[in-house]
Amino acid sequence: MSSYPYPMLDKPSMIWSRQTDKSKDIKVHEWIETAGEAEPNWEDYDVTILGVPLSKSSISTSAASENPEAMRQAWKAFSTYNLDEEIDLAQLKAIDLGNVKQHVTNIEYTHQQIQDAMVAMRTNHPHTLPISMGGDHSITAMLVKGWKQAHPNENIGILQLDTHFDLRDPKLIGPANGTPIRNLIESETIQGNHVHNIGLHGFFNAKELKDFADKAGLHYTTMKQARKKGISNAINYALHQLEEEVDTIYLTVDMDVLDIVHGPAAPAATPGGMYSEELFEAVQIAGQHIKVKAMDIVCLDPRKDVGEQSVKSAVHTMLSFLTGYCKR
Amino acid sequence: MSSYPYPMLDKPSMIWSRQTDKSKDIKVHEWIETAGEAEPNWEDYDVTILGVPLSKSSISTSAASENPEAMRQAWKAFSTYNLDEEIDLAQLKAIDLGNVKQHVTNIEYTHQQIQDAMVAMRTNHPHTLPISMGGDHSITAMLVKGWKQAHPNENIGILQLDTHFDLRDPKLIGPANGTPIRNLIESETIQGNHVHNIGLHGFFNAKELKDFADKAGLHYTTMKQARKKGISNAINYALHQLEEEVDTIYLTVDMDVLDIVHGPAAPAATPGGMYSEELFEAVQIAGQHIKVKAMDIVCLDPRKDVGEQSVKSAVHTMLSFLTGYCKR
Amino acid sequence: MSSYPYPMLDKPSMIWSRQTDKSKDIKVHEWIETAGEAEPNWEDYDVTILGVPLSKSSISTSAASENPEAMRQAWKAFSTYNLDEEIDLAQLKAIDLGNVKQHVTNIEYTHQQIQDAMVAMRTNHPHTLPISMGGDHSITAMLVKGWKQAHPNENIGILQLDTHFDLRDPKLIGPANGTPIRNLIESETIQGNHVHNIGLHGFFNAKELKDFADKAGLHYTTMKQARKKGISNAINYALHQLEEEVDTIYLTVDMDVLDIVHGPAAPAATPGGMYSEELFEAVQIAGQHIKVKAMDIVCLDPRKDVGEQSVKSAVHTMLSFLTGYCKR
Amino acid sequence: MSSYPYPMLDKPSMIWSRQTDKSKDIKVHEWIETAGEAEPNWEDYDVTILGVPLSKSSISTSAASENPEAMRQAWKAFSTYNLDEEIDLAQLKAIDLGNVKQHVTNIEYTHQQIQDAMVAMRTNHPHTLPISMGGDHSITAMLVKGWKQAHPNENIGILQLDTHFDLRDPKLIGPANGTPIRNLIESETIQGNHVHNIGLHGFFNAKELKDFADKAGLHYTTMKQARKKGISNAINYALHQLEEEVDTIYLTVDMDVLDIVHGPAAPAATPGGMYSEELFEAVQIAGQHIKVKAMDIVCLDPRKDVGEQSVKSAVHTMLSFLTGYCKR
Amino acid sequence: MSSYPYPMLDKPSMIWSRQTDKSKDIKVHEWIETAGEAEPNWEDYDVTILGVPLSKSSISTSAASENPEAMRQAWKAFSTYNLDEEIDLAQLKAIDLGNVKQHVTNIEYTHQQIQDAMVAMRTNHPHTLPISMGGDHSITAMLVKGWKQAHPNENIGILQLDTHFDLRDPKLIGPANGTPIRNLIESETIQGNHVHNIGLHGFFNAKELKDFADKAGLHYTTMKQARKKGISNAINYALHQLEEEVDTIYLTVDMDVLDIVHGPAAPAATPGGMYSEELFEAVQIAGQHIKVKAMDIVCLDPRKDVGEQSVKSAVHTMLSFLTGYCKR
Amino acid sequence: MSSYPYPMLDKPSMIWSRQTDKSKDIKVHEWIETAGEAEPNWEDYDVTILGVPLSKSSISTSAASENPEAMRQAWKAFSTYNLDEEIDLAQLKAIDLGNVKQHVTNIEYTHQQIQDAMVAMRTNHPHTLPISMGGDHSITAMLVKGWKQAHPNENIGILQLDTHFDLRDPKLIGPANGTPIRNLIESETIQGNHVHNIGLHGFFNAKELKDFADKAGLHYTTMKQARKKGISNAINYALHQLEEEVDTIYLTVDMDVLDIVHGPAAPAATPGGMYSEELFEAVQIAGQHIKVKAMDIVCLDPRKDVGEQSVKSAVHTMLSFLTGYCKR
Repeated sequence: MSSYPYPMLDKPSMIWSRQTDKSKDIKVHEWIETAGEAEPNWEDYDVTILGVPLSKSSISTSAASENPEAMRQAWKAFSTYNLDEEIDLAQLKAIDLGNVKQHVTNIEYTHQQIQDAMVAMRTNHPHTLPISMGGDHSITAMLVKGWKQAHPNENIGILQLDTHFDLRDPKLIGPANGTPIRNLIESETIQGNHVHNIGLHGFFNAKELKDFADKAGLHYTTMKQARKKGISNAINYALHQLEEEVDTIYLTVDMDVLDIVHGPAAPAATPGGMYSEELFEAVQIAGQHIKVKAMDIVCLDPRKDVGEQSVKSAVHTMLSFLTGYCKR
Repeated sequence: MSSYPYPMLDKPSMIWSRQTDKSKDIKVHEWIETAGEAEPNWEDYDVTILGVPLSKSSISTSAASENPEAMRQAWKAFSTYNLDEEIDLAQLKAIDLGNVKQHVTNIEYTHQQIQDAMVAMRTNHPHTLPISMGGDHSITAMLVKGWKQAHPNENIGILQLDTHFDLRDPKLIGPANGTPIRNLIESETIQGNHVHNIGLHGFFNAKELKDFADKAGLHYTTMKQARKKGISNAINYALHQLEEEVDTIYLTVDMDVLDIVHGPAAPAATPGGMYSEELFEAVQIAGQHIKVKAMDIVCLDPRKDVGEQSVKSAVHTMLSFLTGYCKR
Repeated sequence: MSSYPYPMLDKPSMIWSRQTDKSKDIKVHEWIETAGEAEPNWEDYDVTILGVPLSKSSISTSAASENPEAMRQAWKAFSTYNLDEEIDLAQLKAIDLGNVKQHVTNIEYTHQQIQDAMVAMRTNHPHTLPISMGGDHSITAMLVKGWKQAHPNENIGILQLDTHFDLRDPKLIGPANGTPIRNLIESETIQGNHVHNIGLHGFFNAKELKDFADKAGLHYTTMKQARKKGISNAINYALHQLEEEVDTIYLTVDMDVLDIVHGPAAPAATPGGMYSEELFEAVQIAGQHIKVKAMDIVCLDPRKDVGEQSVKSAVHTMLSFLTGYCKR
Repeated sequence: MSSYPYPMLDKPSMIWSRQTDKSKDIKVHEWIETAGEAEPNWEDYDVTILGVPLSKSSISTSAASENPEAMRQAWKAFSTYNLDEEIDLAQLKAIDLGNVKQHVTNIEYTHQQIQDAMVAMRTNHPHTLPISMGGDHSITAMLVKGWKQAHPNENIGILQLDTHFDLRDPKLIGPANGTPIRNLIESETIQGNHVHNIGLHGFFNAKELKDFADKAGLHYTTMKQARKKGISNAINYALHQLEEEVDTIYLTVDMDVLDIVHGPAAPAATPGGMYSEELFEAVQIAGQHIKVKAMDIVCLDPRKDVGEQSVKSAVHTMLSFLTGYCKR
Repeated sequence: MSSYPYPMLDKPSMIWSRQTDKSKDIKVHEWIETAGEAEPNWEDYDVTILGVPLSKSSISTSAASENPEAMRQAWKAFSTYNLDEEIDLAQLKAIDLGNVKQHVTNIEYTHQQIQDAMVAMRTNHPHTLPISMGGDHSITAMLVKGWKQAHPNENIGILQLDTHFDLRDPKLIGPANGTPIRNLIESETIQGNHVHNIGLHGFFNAKELKDFADKAGLHYTTMKQARKKGISNAINYALHQLEEEVDTIYLTVDMDVLDIVHGPAAPAATPGGMYSEELFEAVQIAGQHIKVKAMDIVCLDPRKDVGEQSVKSAVHTMLSFLTGYCKR
Repeated sequence: MSSYPYPMLDKPSMIWSRQTDKSKDIKVHEWIETAGEAEPNWEDYDVTILGVPLSKSSISTSAASENPEAMRQAWKAFSTYNLDEEIDLAQLKAIDLGNVKQHVTNIEYTHQQIQDAMVAMRTNHPHTLPISMGGDHSITAMLVKGWKQAHPNENIGILQLDTHFDLRDPKLIGPANGTPIRNLIESETIQGNHVHNIGLHGFFNAKELKDFADKAGLHYTTMKQARKKGISNAINYALHQLEEEVDTIYLTVDMDVLDIVHGPAAPAATPGGMYSEELFEAVQIAGQHIKVKAMDIVCLDPRKDVGEQSVKSAVHTMLSFLTGYCKR
């Protein structure tokens, strides 16, 4: 390279990642490695990041398929150092595996690929923490099924941050984005009483879905209840409840849990929801819990965003979760 | 209909309201009936909803005239079931009467139509609760005058959620959107000391308007005071005060009471205002009060909205008020 | 109705369609009837309009699924009277059949419904002219297959206004929006030399697709060639060529044929394309031709529109085509 | 001023108009004088510019009221020198009179003020050329009535560039923005056969309006006809026709004559309309004609603009007209 | 003026400032005088306002240069009367000095002009309170250096509301917007332990910058800590700490301290930041402190704003600070 | 790689460039190589592409600095095959060198880097065609000076497509974006009569600049003249004129030559300008000329774009120019 005759240029490969000053500031995209041609040494990695760009399974049209790439662009503006906690995420070794391949017209096929991806992650390097960037909420059912396939004897619990139950009937609309929790219960991947939903509120869940939830034994803390007792208490309570019953807690964050003002890119966000700093606090606490072994972030359509507010919140959510993980 | 040869089609009439699954989920537009050709049986209805698409009376250009239709579109995304309170609004029978007719160039004529509409509602079915969707705040003066015309012996109180006093002088600018409270006082429709305004704050009311308010005996709780004592306490205090003095409390919600971040479509919203969940709490409490007999929502210009945030908040405000009504 | 006690109101059913003056101005939504509960007298109708809200079959995320409803809203601003031609479309009897039912997660199933819808139209009332509002371009393959199923002995030609060949390989990506013409050729629904594409230009078709086109005997006139000889001459030339060979000419308008400035809502529109008045002229000429028996308009995503420019152009395209039809 | 101790500051009065270089480049806002406290010497002025910020008279909500101020801001980006014609508008002496006062709730009163303003202009300095910036098209009726009041013996002709006839019935909707030409004819301010409309096209005028036009003897050249014969020929033909019959030709430019792509801020612009350079050519020719003695530009809502495209076109239209005026 | 023949017009000079009613409501633009040709009587002024439209010094492209003019436009919507505190700012005499002159291509030259402007203010009328509207944060270094040049014997402290330390190294990137605090420390204008930063949070400061801060003795209260102890307590604590050590406290508000939802126009705002009413409270308290003698507001790019939310917050911030000043 | 255990994933490096089908379609980003660590074999390359992300030198704030990266993203949607001309650009070997390094606060330094980059290109591989993506128009002066420095004996001519002369005085504002042509003439890099500008029109050049141009002997064809004689004739005429006089013709395309409707992202685009297909035709002809040896595209601010219309036009401009180059 010494012979490259352009000292005054930033090469293309340097443009995105170029440091304007030569400080030791590490940005997130400089920390997270990306899977390339050579076989990584899987032993070394603490965290794997997976893009799942599927949103054809959404009831309404959604470009949540563009979220993984949007998050990758947005995290270039984040340092690895969390000033509040004085924790540097760079102590973890993380790798971005890329995106699950998508079939243009066969959703079922894509769903199977997603499940296979989780099986492969659990098989190839079961010690790593998988973080999945959706895509819509239908992917959660596939990812959890993949986990179950890899670990058939585990009891899996779900900690769900969501404005909705996601208990619509897949028999009527297929495995769409309103159905994952019911899908998991009815396929006996999980038990209804191993789910705890935090964030339900307002006029956004049919009475019959609540009745289904009650009958299935689901636990839930509404947004109002969570605020009354404090977000951290609500999360800790849910974690305590789940840890008694299950081996693994899967954390799924539907970004529509955010108030519509805080998550404008979540197509189903509503007034009266969670604020972003409440969400960051919630996932950091979850990240600290020993049984929380996987996480996903779903239902964010970057085309609906206002000035990257929501996508940056999604990245912050991921990093806050990892901050908790470092504190274990 | 059995002979309709298109089993694979949704007819036009079904497109908007189609259920993607056949669940018993009732959306608000499926619950609120719409006045058609046949004479409704007025005895049956608990609630009437009236659109008042007038905003030519605004000091600055406003498309608040488009709000009634925007709210009707937006409420298709709301269920009737309030999960927080475990109340189903479908227990009420509600009918959308349509919109007050508008004259293109004669505002005075339109104002008279609005007043007449309230007189007709109070005459035809005085047991129902009228909810009016503005339009700008000038309509409140006409609606309250209509109530007074129908019930000349009642003392009417006003519970006003607003960033402004709305005490500008109609002698100078006509019955415009800055004037309704003064209009009502000076026309002796109401007494100044029967008004309680909650939400005033910042630099958005002239000193002379405050002086007028004080001289007229108006009550008010600023936003800062309301937050200090708690929104629910502030509302309850105002209701207690009014219930001593008046027969009927008319609730008027100027959406510019919202912080500009929470109500971007309210042209006069400002920083430092109310948050949407505070507004929902406030109107739910008001809805529970036996003397609160009418409500309007005004000054929302859907063209200024950001991703339907404000219009959805307006719908939520109406539904939260009705939740309170169910709890009476 | 004489007893309805609200003379000052527009009922909900009147709000959208209300005439601000009582003129005899007929707007398009007042002319096109909508299929309701009662069985229409199919004998009477000249034109049927079908919504095909499928865009999950698009290679990139598209909300072209929202186009049928967007066109229905937009045509409320159009009169039936074409001043340029002194033709009133109201001389035709037209009915909006509604939308083809959509499965949330099974694209193949929806595709079959689309084909069935065309079969039903050709069976129930073969004398009417079907106009289909997409959806993405994948629907054209299904609609033409439906026609072929209903009329197995007909030779069908395609007049395609498009920036692209749409000859990508369905074996690789399924019957997606880049594949319909190849799909039709390879399924032997049509012959390659019965296709004439007008509007190709620039850097938006791979060399191998042109080679496929040439081998399959497709005809095409590039945008530059069409402008050089005049749009009307180009269309007339293509129609003459096709009328020699086929029984039925199916006109398919991919709105991305428009220059990106004229069709901002067509996700694949590019610089260097057709101007809207050129498109109107083209389809009006096609509409006059006796063998042009069906038409569709596809690949318009209303969420990408700028001030309804593109959706209004889509409506104008449909109406210009019908103007030609009246001139037969 | 020599004692002002801030050599490093631009004073507030200089910020908007500051020259970044000290060139002799004269921008339009530096050329057009503004009426201040002192009495101008009316003898000196060739052109008066009047803002008419009324759009409450529009059938649909419009912020065309904001257009005069938007044009004043936008013309700061224009030089007075027309390179194409090598003409410097600075040879004319022009003054901006300000805006007609608006009543908030009484449209009739405002309309009278507009008429009075034209009477005052024709009385105070009848040698100047008045240019009015609307506001909506209702103002044209008032301005022409004012002219007629000041010059009762003149025959006034109208050269109208418009997508619409503007012949709706003021008896039904008052003197609104769809009615000015009919208003003028029915009030006998002008004769129907003294109107020539250029730019009509498509599906945007009811058949009955055309019938009214024909019966009233209106002249019109459709957009298609104008393009076929050439815009300049169409304008010259119309001017020749009018000059035979009338003393004064009033030019009114409804910006919705522009294609929706070229005039996105004109709420009623449609596909298939005039391009901006065609409009500039048309008004420049009109400006050269000795009998064209007044001009207005109406129906532009700056809130609907895309990057100031339309407002800049409106300014260019005014300047092109004045270029023609200089060439007399 | 009595002879001006247009009683029905608002003159241009009156358009922006016109009172729609003739109330005594004083808007901020009517209160703040603007420096004109005549020498002001500097003795009379309590407050000077300075525009510093420089943002070429930003690491990323920013139009913060347009902020001073945007704030001037926005404050026309604010009254001088603060209802919460019952304080009328009109009791202060304030003058807008205009903007510091900008060189198009020489940032160093412009920086010197900024420093000179502060020197001139401190020399010409040292009793007044200077408020500077940036521009980006690089200007703070120049303004404080100007203060130091005028008052070489003073110890200056900095109260900084900011999401960032602004301690990047000017040796690497010049005196850019990430560097002002380090610039001031390294130039020995101030001491590191005379800085107190409130609002740091999340993943937006490199570890090495925190290390630099700690080594330099900077004080800081993170956003989380400030919320935990209460904003007012946090500010008071910082003020107490600084008042022990310094003669003058310079308050600098980087608008990116706001949560991205509350300050969308601050290019570097992030999720998890301060809410606008917290900022108003903070600066009001600072304004009350006898040693706070200057203030700036920086890093707001009006082109990124959503409905003027951020610019209005910037104005409110300035007015809240002055409210505190009145309470001294 | 055979051991990479994720057959169902697209690796990060494949996400952007992934082929949805396995066709031989080559997209532009797959054709243009990017300079990496290893020394390229410069002999092989026909074309070098250089990003020049400088826009701090703009008179008004511009994010034209973001244009090189925006063009790189946008060209992923273009094939290398030009259907109109049946030319595949892949016959050329092209390399993207990256971006000229930028100093944050020292524009002069950055300007020198730009000049040095051109010198290096001319020195290292003088046989290649350099294409530069600005940045603002100030860069043209530096690039041409670099050429002159490398080839001191050449006469350089400028073919400029522009709405403006760019003859403002660098002595007053430094080497800013309004000055490059004057800068080049006054530095005696070129002669005034070796410049031919096509596209000037309207009210956007001061009289004194035209006088300067005439005095300096500049050639120019206004937009109106060019349309009258035909764009291709105008370009050919200019090329003929220049080829007589100079050794090298440098083509500079200021994107503001486009009509504001066709180039919304060019901050200085105006109504009445060039249409995009006219621009493509112009540069293709220029590309064919043997003496045209370099090209730049400047003054496009992607933040102002509408749906990528302008950035896509910029890419198309570059590819059309290369199409011409292939036809030599």
